[in-house]
Amino acid sequence: MEPLLKEAALLNKKAAFRKEKGLFVAEGLNLCEEAPPERIRALFYTDAFAAEHPAFFRERAGMRAAGVPFLRVPENDFLRASDTRTPQGVMALVSCFRYDADQLLCRENGLFLILETLQDPGNLGTILRSAEAAGVTAVFIGAGSADIYNPKTVRATMGALFRVPFIENVCVPDVVRMLGARGIKTCAAALQGSVPYDSVDYTGPSAFLIGNESAGLTEESIALSDQAVRIPMQGKVESLNAGVAAALLVFEAERQRRAERAPGN
Amino acid sequence: MEPLLKEAALLNKKAAFRKEKGLFVAEGLNLCEEAPPERIRALFYTDAFAAEHPAFFRERAGMRAAGVPFLRVPENDFLRASDTRTPQGVMALVSCFRYDADQLLCRENGLFLILETLQDPGNLGTILRSAEAAGVTAVFIGAGSADIYNPKTVRATMGALFRVPFIENVCVPDVVRMLGARGIKTCAAALQGSVPYDSVDYTGPSAFLIGNESAGLTEESIALSDQAVRIPMQGKVESLNAGVAAALLVFEAERQRRAERAPGN
Repeated sequence: MEPLLKEAALLNKKAAFRKEKGLFVAEGLNLCEEAPPERIRALFYTDAFAAEHPAFFRERAGMRAAGVPFLRVPENDFLRASDTRTPQGVMALVSCFRYDADQLLCRENGLFLILETLQDPGNLGTILRSAEAAGVTAVFIGAGSADIYNPKTVRATMGALFRVPFIENVCVPDVVRMLGARGIKTCAAALQGSVPYDSVDYTGPSAFLIGNESAGLTEESIALSDQAVRIPMQGKVESLNAGVAAALLVFEAERQRRAERAPGN
Repeated sequence: MEPLLKEAALLNKKAAFRKEKGLFVAEGLNLCEEAPPERIRALFYTDAFAAEHPAFFRERAGMRAAGVPFLRVPENDFLRASDTRTPQGVMALVSCFRYDADQLLCRENGLFLILETLQDPGNLGTILRSAEAAGVTAVFIGAGSADIYNPKTVRATMGALFRVPFIENVCVPDVVRMLGARGIKTCAAALQGSVPYDSVDYTGPSAFLIGNESAGLTEESIALSDQAVRIPMQGKVESLNAGVAAALLVFEAERQRRAERAPGN
């Protein structure tokens, strides 16, 4: 197998290797189209993909001319490197992102998500997707969470990974203290929260904390937050899916901010 | 392998076999505890589970005495029948549900979800979980959707499957017409919806239509609905996860209904 494709296969499998190389794999037409061109280090494709998508190559003639390897690989090798069962025949090696937390926190009227040991790769990706749609400024991902560059996560973001800033591997209590010191209202999503989530004002700088899928947030993170908010629930279900809870909170903030921008709408 | 366990293994794998038998598998301690006792047809457990959970068996002595088979099976056989990689050592054969659509539609101030060819089993389960929490009266599942009794779906419902009424395999346009005829406001979630979802009044009888993960709702279903509503989105993300969209809609209805019940809260 082409050595660079072998590397892609390993990047798909091992978080430690992604970290070491500072690279991850974006697979499929949409993700390869949405990946920022300047971050693409190599591109793999099959004959079938090339035959079906001539425009894709025309539009990337400049990238190719600039020396980015475009590697045609046999269908079987592609399938072995791919993380999907029915690959579309295109994947890119993309360099990992690095954002500056200070700059992100300075953005006007920021809206932040802080995820504490969120373990499901699909949930993490879905949360990034919802975060972009709700206008979230940045997502802080706690140590021990799923890897944002896990291929399942990358797919579930539907490209939001390329656009929503995030800081990985953070110590959640430290982040809560840091945001608090900057006057950003920190709200912990907790079943035992004292107020309904929609009774708090999020039109100023705000942040939501979302906990682990089964254990929720740690006592420490809840105690450090300005407010513990609960999502009122009927029936006997014990909790909501973490991705659903995160979406309800950031879209409540979006709803309030939208109402403020255009009163009466 | 114990013949009834073989049947469970096949029920985990084949939707057609579940349909033929009118049975499905609920796996894990929580689901086996939450399954309505009168629907349990058989129970399988491993030695390790029995040793760890004596109370589970004490509480079910009556069920056993009434003739429901409690079958101790070898760890290896259990693993082969299970749909999970690290099973907890308990699963139940449960009889499928059958609800009467007419009765459900007569409930006062009903809140309904209609899912059109929703294909991801996890999404379907998560939607049932959110539906219960938001107080949804019943969920209509369109023909061609994931099977509600798929083991992944059952797990993702976190038990809501046992409590939220649902009607499977419906013709979505027929359901929309039927609800419309009964004065239930039908709202289609559509990217091209003419009004923001939070500008519509859902305090009366209401229903939301959610479409397929990639194709959305059909033109026909949108046209038949009273209103097409959109979830305003920022950024470049094209759509929301179907489970997230469904949750935002039913929780907006929940929020409005809660505000009406307790004004000023």
